[in-house]
Amino acid sequence: MDYKSYHEITNQSVALKKTFNLLALKADEIKSFFKNQGDVVFIACGSSYWASLSAYRTFSFYTNRRAYAVKAGDILMNPEEYKTVSTNPILVCPSRSGATTEQLKAIEILRNSYRSVPLLSIVEYENSPLQQVSDLTLNIPWANEESVCQTRSFSCLYLAMVLISAIASENQRLLSGMKNYVENAALLHIKGEQVIRNIVNSFGNFDYLVALGSGRQYGVAIEGAYIGIEMALLRASYYSVLELRHGPIVTTNDKTLVAIVSNGYALELEENMAKDAKKQGAKVLAVVSNGSFENADWVCSMDSDYPAEAVALYYVYLMQLLAYYKAVILGLDPDHPGNLVPYITL
Amino acid sequence: MDYKSYHEITNQSVALKKTFNLLALKADEIKSFFKNQGDVVFIACGSSYWASLSAYRTFSFYTNRRAYAVKAGDILMNPEEYKTVSTNPILVCPSRSGATTEQLKAIEILRNSYRSVPLLSIVEYENSPLQQVSDLTLNIPWANEESVCQTRSFSCLYLAMVLISAIASENQRLLSGMKNYVENAALLHIKGEQVIRNIVNSFGNFDYLVALGSGRQYGVAIEGAYIGIEMALLRASYYSVLELRHGPIVTTNDKTLVAIVSNGYALELEENMAKDAKKQGAKVLAVVSNGSFENADWVCSMDSDYPAEAVALYYVYLMQLLAYYKAVILGLDPDHPGNLVPYITL
Repeated sequence: MDYKSYHEITNQSVALKKTFNLLALKADEIKSFFKNQGDVVFIACGSSYWASLSAYRTFSFYTNRRAYAVKAGDILMNPEEYKTVSTNPILVCPSRSGATTEQLKAIEILRNSYRSVPLLSIVEYENSPLQQVSDLTLNIPWANEESVCQTRSFSCLYLAMVLISAIASENQRLLSGMKNYVENAALLHIKGEQVIRNIVNSFGNFDYLVALGSGRQYGVAIEGAYIGIEMALLRASYYSVLELRHGPIVTTNDKTLVAIVSNGYALELEENMAKDAKKQGAKVLAVVSNGSFENADWVCSMDSDYPAEAVALYYVYLMQLLAYYKAVILGLDPDHPGNLVPYITL
Repeated sequence: MDYKSYHEITNQSVALKKTFNLLALKADEIKSFFKNQGDVVFIACGSSYWASLSAYRTFSFYTNRRAYAVKAGDILMNPEEYKTVSTNPILVCPSRSGATTEQLKAIEILRNSYRSVPLLSIVEYENSPLQQVSDLTLNIPWANEESVCQTRSFSCLYLAMVLISAIASENQRLLSGMKNYVENAALLHIKGEQVIRNIVNSFGNFDYLVALGSGRQYGVAIEGAYIGIEMALLRASYYSVLELRHGPIVTTNDKTLVAIVSNGYALELEENMAKDAKKQGAKVLAVVSNGSFENADWVCSMDSDYPAEAVALYYVYLMQLLAYYKAVILGLDPDHPGNLVPYITL
C-alpha cells in the first residue's frame, strides 16, 4: 500500500474533520453571504461539478431557494444561454486548484452579464486566481492530494457545500448529522474497507461498474462511477435509480457490479431495482444509513440514522477505495492514471 | 434491411413532417397554454427525458422563462425534494406510451403539492392515461414504433418540444429553421447514411462510443449514446464537450469513436477537443450546420445555416443509424434488444 492515493482515501476522516471545524468557524460570514438575494448557482468542472450537482439539490431542499449546478465549460461554450439563467445569480464555486481556465472564464462571462454577482469559493490551493475574484473564500489546503484524481478533495468539497446549506438554512439537524458522520468516519471507513476487500477478493474480475443514486445523492453517485473511470480506467456508468430499467439494464451481466446509494425513503423501489439487476446476473452493493437491504450481495450499513448527504459521503469513500483496489489489480498506477493532469488550462 | 427499426429510422422525415404540421395547427392552443405564469417543468422517463433535457434549455433560452427537466422516477423516489421546486409549476410531459407509471405518479405528487398544475402532454399512443390528466394533448400516433427502442419517437417528441418553444416565444427564426430541416430531412438523411455506412465499413470494429455535445444540444447528444447502449448493447458514454478532458478521456483509445455535435459557436474549443481525442488514438465524427470541422475523420455538414436544435436532430438521426448498423454487425436484433419492453409499469 505504498500508493499515495491509498493514504489520501483511507485517511480522509482527518481532512473531513478539519473542514468541518473551518466551516463552523466561518458560520457567521457564510450566513451573511447568503443574505444576498437571488438564485444560487454552483459552477464547477470535473469532479467538483458532480459534487455541486448533489450540493445544489441539498441547498435548495434546505433553504427553499432556487439553486442550480452548471458546468463551467458549458458557460464558456454557450455564453448566450446563460445570460438570462437567473435574475441575479449568487455563485458558489468549489475547486481543488482555483486555477481552472473554464471556471475563471465562466465567472467573467456572468460578471459581464449581470450587475452584481457575489461569489463564495471553496478552494484547496492557496493564493489562487479564484480566490482573488471571490467575495468570500473557504480555504481547505489539507484536502489537496499529491495524486492526480480527486478523492479526499471531492469528499471535503462536498462536505463543505453540505455544511454551507446547513448554515444558510440554520438547520441543526443536518449540521449535527454531518458532525456525527465526521466523528465516526474513521471507524466507518475501516468497517467499509473490509466490505470492499471482500468484494475485490470474491468478485475482483468484474469489468463493468454501474453507480445508482437519486435525488440529492445523485451527483455523488455519479462521482462513484467517475472515480472508477479515472483511477482504474474502468468501464463505468451512472444512472438515476429507476432509470436503469428504461434501457441501460440490457448491458448488465454477470461481470457487472451495481452499487446503489440508498436515500432511506424509497427502499422498496431500490430493492426492486437491485432484484432486476440480479436477474441479469449482476452483483449488487448497497450503502444504507441504518438497517438491511434486500437483494444485495453486500450491504454497507452505517448502523445509525444519518442524513442522505452523509450516506452519499460514505458511498463515495467506498467507491474511491473500490477504484483504488481495482486499479492495483489491473496493474495500473492509481496515483497517475493515463496522462491526466490535476487541472485543465485552456 | 428487413428490420423494422431500419425503416423507422430512415423514414422518420415523414413523421417529422406530420409532427410539424400538427404543431402549426395547434399554435393558438399552445400559445394560450403558456399564458399560465410559473416555472416550466419538463417531466419524463428514459429517452423522453433526454429529449426534455435539451428541450427545457431551448424553452428557457427563447422564452426567457425559468425551466427545468426532471426525471419522473426521481420525483417518485424523492417527493419531498420536489414540493418546493417551483412556486407554480407548469408541466410539459412528453411520452411515447402515455402509460409509464413513474410519470403518472410524479404528476399526481406535484398536483397534490401545488394549488394549480397545468399540463401539456405530447403522446403517441391514443387514449392514454396521460392524456386523461392533461389540459392540452398533442397526439402524434405516427411517431410510434413497432420496435422497442425509441428512434423516430425520440426525434418527433424532441421536434414537438422545440416547436413549442418557438410558438411560445413567437420566434419566427427558430420556427423557419426547423421547418427548413423538416423539408430537407429526407435528402439530408440519405446523405448522412452514406457517412454512417462509411464509418461502419472502415471502422466497424469500434467498441466504445463517446457522444459529446453542449448547451441545449447536450440532452440530445446523450440520447446519441443511449441508443447505442440500448439497441446495440454498446459500451457508450456521453459528456459535455469540455468535460471529456477532465478525466474520462483516459478511457478512450484506437477503438473509440467520438461523435461530436457542434453548437456552431465554440468551434475552436470543439476542434481542440477532437484533437485531444485523436491523440488518444480515437476516431472522430463531427456533425455541423455548415462548413468544415478540423481534426475530424468524418464530417456531416448540413450545408446550410440551421439552428442548434436542427443540428441536434440531425445528429441523433445519425446516431440511431449507427446503433442500428452496429447491432446488425454484432448479430443482434435491433428491433428487440435484450428483454426490454416499450414502457415500464411499476
